[in-house]
Amino acid sequence: MDCILYDLTASGDRRFSPYCWRTKLALAHKGLDYTTVATRFTDIDALDDGPRLTLPVLDDGNTRIVDSWAIAEHLEAQHINRPPLFPGGKAHARFMNNWTPTIHPPLLRLILLDVFNAQDVENQTYFRSDREAKFGMTLEAFVENHDAHLKAFRAALSPIRETLKSQAFLAGNTPAYADYIPAGAFLWAEAISDCEIVASDDPVAAWMQRMKAVLN
Amino acid sequence: MDCILYDLTASGDRRFSPYCWRTKLALAHKGLDYTTVATRFTDIDALDDGPRLTLPVLDDGNTRIVDSWAIAEHLEAQHINRPPLFPGGKAHARFMNNWTPTIHPPLLRLILLDVFNAQDVENQTYFRSDREAKFGMTLEAFVENHDAHLKAFRAALSPIRETLKSQAFLAGNTPAYADYIPAGAFLWAEAISDCEIVASDDPVAAWMQRMKAVLN
Repeated sequence: MDCILYDLTASGDRRFSPYCWRTKLALAHKGLDYTTVATRFTDIDALDDGPRLTLPVLDDGNTRIVDSWAIAEHLEAQHINRPPLFPGGKAHARFMNNWTPTIHPPLLRLILLDVFNAQDVENQTYFRSDREAKFGMTLEAFVENHDAHLKAFRAALSPIRETLKSQAFLAGNTPAYADYIPAGAFLWAEAISDCEIVASDDPVAAWMQRMKAVLN
Repeated sequence: MDCILYDLTASGDRRFSPYCWRTKLALAHKGLDYTTVATRFTDIDALDDGPRLTLPVLDDGNTRIVDSWAIAEHLEAQHINRPPLFPGGKAHARFMNNWTPTIHPPLLRLILLDVFNAQDVENQTYFRSDREAKFGMTLEAFVENHDAHLKAFRAALSPIRETLKSQAFLAGNTPAYADYIPAGAFLWAEAISDCEIVASDDPVAAWMQRMKAVLN
């Protein structure tokens, strides 16, 4: 039976969660078929009557796995004979899992209104209320000074940009989960926003094309 | 014949270059004996009549290697049967080599005057002139707002701090060059400054003790 992935969606069926993209890249890497269930923010509560879940949620037969890192570990353990998500061990990917949160906030400053505008009315209400409470300011104030935020985001990419000058993938000569973690951020932006978050001649842009090829 | 390492020094023979510390950790990891040549900033020009060198410089027999990364690659290639500096490949360490420059500037804001004060008169003159031209401000202006810089530096450590919550070393269960690159920054600070750059209960502080054990 195929895995079932609960995948965050917006209007126009845009799938935009960076964490769900990590899982879709991991499933593609392992060559696994899967079905997605399009899930809006306001649908998440209905997935479980326990503590609130976050997406991605993966149902693999009778096993439910929550959290993109736990899903990657599960897929690696269950499909050890397929291409490894963690070649050479998990240490590198674990660092990427802890580094990538440093690029999400500057990226969010670039695409937040696009995320908001892509929601249906019910989810716009939820999103504005939830995020404005979290940020302590309006969505519109959060994204002010776009050019400065774009510059900050591109500067924050320096560690991946410099690494991609000497190798095709962050994981080395072939892609692995160390790539898929930050790649999720770029697929998030691309699904929901027209903002050119990296210049077309940036090595990061060429790497992103290679990441998208993993999905095909 | 032992390797010869040209190692940046200050008064009181304090060895403070973060890049030289990376090399000393790599040499210790490989279990190699080496001799150091204490080298002040103003001694560097005399090492070569070609383009200006940067430290570390390692003379291994008739081979001279410049640059800490190149030295690590050289040591790995020459001593492949000793414990690997790059277990599982170089990709992880290469990312650390590109990430660590993001923590050097906030750290420098904490220790710059200590670096200056540790030089002899000739090297103080060189250092002030060189660095003030580079920063576009006086050394004293560069370090203003110490508390804010300390907070920024500690926040910038988040990716290593979070990683060290799940494993003893950045490289995994045993240390490797992926650890030694950022560890050099902390040994730099410790050699030259009394500033408590990380809190004593920070997982990073415990990891630093493990790094120092590598040197013994």
